[in-house]
Amino acid sequence: MLKSFIPVEPDSHFPIQNLPYGIFRPLEGGKPRVGVAIGEYVLDLSVVEGAGLLKDTGLPDETIFAKPSLNEFMALGKDVWKNVRAKLQHLLREDETTLRDQTELRTAAIRKQSEVELLLPAQIGDYTDFYASKEHAMNVGTMFRGKENALMPNWTHLPVGYHGRSSSVVISGTDIYRPKGQMKPKDADKPLFGSSQQLDIELEMGWFIGPGNERGKPISAASAEEQIFGLVLVNDWSARDIQAWEYQPLGPFLSKSFATSISPWVVPLEALEPFRTEGPKQDPAPLAYLQKEGPSTFDIHLEVYLKGKEMDRSQKIITTNFSYLYWSMAQQIAHHTVAGCNLRPGDLLASGTISGENKHERGCLLELTWRGSEPIELDNGEQRVWLKDEDEITMTGWCQGDGYRIGFGEVTGRILPVVD
Amino acid sequence: MLKSFIPVEPDSHFPIQNLPYGIFRPLEGGKPRVGVAIGEYVLDLSVVEGAGLLKDTGLPDETIFAKPSLNEFMALGKDVWKNVRAKLQHLLREDETTLRDQTELRTAAIRKQSEVELLLPAQIGDYTDFYASKEHAMNVGTMFRGKENALMPNWTHLPVGYHGRSSSVVISGTDIYRPKGQMKPKDADKPLFGSSQQLDIELEMGWFIGPGNERGKPISAASAEEQIFGLVLVNDWSARDIQAWEYQPLGPFLSKSFATSISPWVVPLEALEPFRTEGPKQDPAPLAYLQKEGPSTFDIHLEVYLKGKEMDRSQKIITTNFSYLYWSMAQQIAHHTVAGCNLRPGDLLASGTISGENKHERGCLLELTWRGSEPIELDNGEQRVWLKDEDEITMTGWCQGDGYRIGFGEVTGRILPVVD
Repeated sequence: MLKSFIPVEPDSHFPIQNLPYGIFRPLEGGKPRVGVAIGEYVLDLSVVEGAGLLKDTGLPDETIFAKPSLNEFMALGKDVWKNVRAKLQHLLREDETTLRDQTELRTAAIRKQSEVELLLPAQIGDYTDFYASKEHAMNVGTMFRGKENALMPNWTHLPVGYHGRSSSVVISGTDIYRPKGQMKPKDADKPLFGSSQQLDIELEMGWFIGPGNERGKPISAASAEEQIFGLVLVNDWSARDIQAWEYQPLGPFLSKSFATSISPWVVPLEALEPFRTEGPKQDPAPLAYLQKEGPSTFDIHLEVYLKGKEMDRSQKIITTNFSYLYWSMAQQIAHHTVAGCNLRPGDLLASGTISGENKHERGCLLELTWRGSEPIELDNGEQRVWLKDEDEITMTGWCQGDGYRIGFGEVTGRILPVVD
Repeated sequence: MLKSFIPVEPDSHFPIQNLPYGIFRPLEGGKPRVGVAIGEYVLDLSVVEGAGLLKDTGLPDETIFAKPSLNEFMALGKDVWKNVRAKLQHLLREDETTLRDQTELRTAAIRKQSEVELLLPAQIGDYTDFYASKEHAMNVGTMFRGKENALMPNWTHLPVGYHGRSSSVVISGTDIYRPKGQMKPKDADKPLFGSSQQLDIELEMGWFIGPGNERGKPISAASAEEQIFGLVLVNDWSARDIQAWEYQPLGPFLSKSFATSISPWVVPLEALEPFRTEGPKQDPAPLAYLQKEGPSTFDIHLEVYLKGKEMDRSQKIITTNFSYLYWSMAQQIAHHTVAGCNLRPGDLLASGTISGENKHERGCLLELTWRGSEPIELDNGEQRVWLKDEDEITMTGWCQGDGYRIGFGEVTGRILPVVD
């Protein structure tokens, strides 16, 4: 098995097989730049590039890794990504001396992750959220419309999606303000204004778009994976009471746009290849523009933890898997562009809540507590239906290899107490 | 009445009282930069700024008008906008010699609009579309759900809105590809794929956001107008057959995201002040966060023209008014931010289709032809229900003053024939 000269524990999310990209700023000062995670360290690609170690990869002559976002690198496409990744894997392997033995270069290029601040990996032009889990759509539909009408007629024919808000996509660790807004409790005869009392999480995964497409030129399902630069964890915070009142007929708006948190390290699609697997069988067969040969999803184990103010440690509340999703990333991209919509480098697409068949696999509190009727029992004797002030939510995920993990790190966020 | 040394016809949209901002590139070559329209000319602000004529306005020391977007100027806020506008109005008045009589400066600074290309005025971070016309919501609701259930219960309590697609906002004159997609005709037992046969327009107005707000810090209705940099015309092209099949439960997606056209000149809110007027009475009274003293809308006359391939001139098909909108711009901004969503400089908000009480005031074909049952009769004997290939749509609008107009120019777009 390929190993790095940098020590990496077997349960680390960031072995040499992963090499996810991120944007960081040294805590000691300096500009934001591109890095890759390796074990507990980050390799500063602006230094590696500056030292001339990334030649013959297809990178442009001007510097691309001293930039404060990955957008320009994302725009270069999969051949360049593949070349750069191969070069980095080579530079970091245990028997390669270039970085390992040149002390000055090594010191400049390799920092502890604990000594850097992680920032948003891209300038996100547009953020799109899908609704690709059948179990999630069934559960939500059953709660709101009854079992017979749970799925809308369109659901099994197309990956339902909608435009999210890109301005409020924030990096892991950012505190979350409890939203205020209009809501209409069942027994009220008119709407009222107040703080959301039904604050929820949504466990999702997102992927950043590479070169993208021109307006009016759709991306085929067969070529769609070439557009995927890499994946992150997504927590699409949701205010269910605001959502229930506002969402008809144009969809969720303020109930989602107050914040969406993402994990900082973008895991390259190539790193996930050993974990490629079949998704659920699709019945009815999708229309031709949504068809693609071969397995189209990945076996990514996902977990969610909650830590309340009164709890001395986090408690796992959800375990699920990315491969449960009914619609694949390729299908979501093909659908998104089929009517002519253009995707741009750095655009973020997300899956929607990822749920499975079992109760502990439900990806949001709405489902997990069945709209509040089945509270979660916490180890310290507390219960949870919706998020309380100062609750901290952490999502994590990884692919389990033989002796190594391809991990996503984590996305975490804490609910700030309301200040009036 | 204030006059410019540049000749301006009484029915021109761009007298010295207007001075809308745009981004242009000389046809002869050169970089995109900021200009203002005056009569049939454009004043190159990068030249005016470079000549030191915009001092003491609060502009930063570095150049701001040689940029390819208005975002940085938008971010500076209303005091700077006011100062710059006053200075420009002074420089352009008929009795002011600085520009008028310095031939070299005047030649460098003033070009014919026919000799420049107009570009998108801002880099749009997020585009939000509302649904603020009661007549439009009533008409659409009546067609789809019957008169009794036409308005959703939330409609009179909050300005319903949703996130649009910013990547496909295009400048006036850009050709529009007829979208393809999934749709399910009434008599079909499963969905089919094809070109949209129900291609529509939506007459809207949009406004660009100035400084914006931080996440978690809402903008009050009282201060919301300070955030409005200026207004443009918007044609939110819509594919009704795709929309009908896709929109539940998360709202319109591909039926809108293939293209949204805007007019190039951004009319400053200050130029509209003489035309401020009361909007419709709101009953029930909105919640406190949506209340604002005084008249909150503007008397803007709006028209839509259609020119088919076989027609030798455009024909007017819609006449309506911005002031018919039920929800004001200030209310839409206050609502947008109340749950904590942040707006950024250059964000675009649009009103949704603007309809009035009378048939000729309906702002889209869906309403105008009552879902196809009342075709439009064209002067050349043709009929229209939905847009045909090569149809060209032009929207225009202005405020009529005494002897002058504050105009928005036009937004135009032509439907390209489908190529397979």
